[in-house]
Amino acid sequence: MNRTPHVAVVGATGAVGIEMLKTLEQRKFPVGKLTLLASARSAGKKLAFQDRQQEVRELTPASFAGIDIALFSAGGSISREFGPIAAKAGCVVIDNSSAFRMDPEVPLVVPEINGADVLSHKGIIANPNCTTAITLMALYPLHQAFHVKRIFASSYQAVSGTGAKAIEELERQVSQVVNGQPVTREVYPHQIAFNVLPHVDSFLPSGYTKEEMKLENEGRKIMHHPGFRASITCVRVPVYRAHSVAVSAEFEKPVTVESAYAVLRKAPGLDVVDEPSKNLYPLPLQAAERYNCQVGRVRMDCAMENGLAFWVSGDQLLKGAALNAVQIAEELLKRS
Amino acid sequence: MNRTPHVAVVGATGAVGIEMLKTLEQRKFPVGKLTLLASARSAGKKLAFQDRQQEVRELTPASFAGIDIALFSAGGSISREFGPIAAKAGCVVIDNSSAFRMDPEVPLVVPEINGADVLSHKGIIANPNCTTAITLMALYPLHQAFHVKRIFASSYQAVSGTGAKAIEELERQVSQVVNGQPVTREVYPHQIAFNVLPHVDSFLPSGYTKEEMKLENEGRKIMHHPGFRASITCVRVPVYRAHSVAVSAEFEKPVTVESAYAVLRKAPGLDVVDEPSKNLYPLPLQAAERYNCQVGRVRMDCAMENGLAFWVSGDQLLKGAALNAVQIAEELLKRS
Repeated sequence: MNRTPHVAVVGATGAVGIEMLKTLEQRKFPVGKLTLLASARSAGKKLAFQDRQQEVRELTPASFAGIDIALFSAGGSISREFGPIAAKAGCVVIDNSSAFRMDPEVPLVVPEINGADVLSHKGIIANPNCTTAITLMALYPLHQAFHVKRIFASSYQAVSGTGAKAIEELERQVSQVVNGQPVTREVYPHQIAFNVLPHVDSFLPSGYTKEEMKLENEGRKIMHHPGFRASITCVRVPVYRAHSVAVSAEFEKPVTVESAYAVLRKAPGLDVVDEPSKNLYPLPLQAAERYNCQVGRVRMDCAMENGLAFWVSGDQLLKGAALNAVQIAEELLKRS
Repeated sequence: MNRTPHVAVVGATGAVGIEMLKTLEQRKFPVGKLTLLASARSAGKKLAFQDRQQEVRELTPASFAGIDIALFSAGGSISREFGPIAAKAGCVVIDNSSAFRMDPEVPLVVPEINGADVLSHKGIIANPNCTTAITLMALYPLHQAFHVKRIFASSYQAVSGTGAKAIEELERQVSQVVNGQPVTREVYPHQIAFNVLPHVDSFLPSGYTKEEMKLENEGRKIMHHPGFRASITCVRVPVYRAHSVAVSAEFEKPVTVESAYAVLRKAPGLDVVDEPSKNLYPLPLQAAERYNCQVGRVRMDCAMENGLAFWVSGDQLLKGAALNAVQIAEELLKRS
């Protein structure tokens, strides 16, 4: 791998694309050259990177010549169409969509958990689902110490996980409610302002949503733990940024709150925020725009043996998307 | 019991007190005479009941002479001070606070579940915690059919559960955020607008909150099921009215989605709203101001045997408070 790679960002003008640019810059990723790609509609726009304005170009099959690393965040259908083209052109694709995550040929990586898996790529590396990544940041260190059997969880997911249009929708609906106007809907099937929607991604015949099954399926692959079981209800809440997850986890080995803290305090990418007597616990507002996820409300689960209950918050545009993708690129450089 | 009882509402000007008056009127409860009681600060205010304006009087130890039924919703300390005085004066207290719920001498009643328990009162009957009542409306019919062992749950609780000042706080903070002003806090320790707080009621040494332990403790008493176990994370969300709860429930007997529906469709006080393909599932906005709770997202839990996952929404000012209290009064009239 080129030590100062030519990096492309596909979907550069989207909510995650913009965070990818910020993250590359903030982490001083050794970008040799940068190419910004997006749909024809966004081509010609200019975006700032390292104090320069750079023009966005239209994504075409010819876009990938000479590019070393392409960070994709333009939706599953763009990834399915252009990911293999980019890989064939010799570029390593780091894909934020769900298109390739469960493909056995594609590593699915959270660098703090299974960074070495990047080495087995065949041109495409997948970035996990946001709720999965955030949950695993706290769960995996506990798994290493106590071996997790299963979890029961519920999520509190921010609208920016849906994209920029959903942020506008929450802003617009709040102002409509405040001004006593009728509430209009474009993105979500129901009003999200002052409401919560137990509906993220589409429904499967089992009654779970696709989003809900990602935690178990992607969790098994990332943790190399095929027996892991996870039941979650994924819920959209009127929060702009950062997801939270309430978890009850059952372990094979005996666990205590103190032994859990000892593990969590050493875990990379994770801050323990847990002083309830001082009203300190993870909050989406405080996890927003931070690289580290936060864990708190750690307690012995009162409905299972060897069980812990806890609460994680994390910025799903960062650890759940852009940061993790850039970390995968860093891992590639470090290991190859 | 007098067939047209003299009813007092203690805390008549509060969020729940006002719902109690509306509910007495809407359900045509045979109020012979009505006395409105509140703190000195609210005395003199007038409230509408059956097209008349009626003055609120100051609550004193002498307030209960001649009163048959007193609906208390003025907080635990008022209940602890005046509840026994009212009972001694010969009145049946129906108390919405947590003061007496776990007292073995005090029945704790959800009329659809254990209505007959009202008969064992010694002057005080307790109304359950709002999240507990709403969860049990769906869980108890399932328990009757399949015998519940334990549940793992997470709540999405509306600010009106905290009271009128919390409604004002959410309104004020939303307008501060929209107008780019600094956000001020009076009720909650953190901003509630565009945030979620994993903190409802005060913390116990175990790391659970008092609110969280009510589900197991009150659930055992209401369902007459001392072995019931419940682990919940209670979370305040920026919703004005109606709580929601995501539940994973483990049963002793084999359960299927179809057998669960059969039970839930017959359950009193509960509507099944569960057509995900049409985007129909319970929502707090749609459960608000309705007597019936709503259950949906019913599915086989993928992380346990004999397990069901489901989602309940209910108006916590009604089924979680005022409606349930009036239903207890109706039960008293019917049974005595």
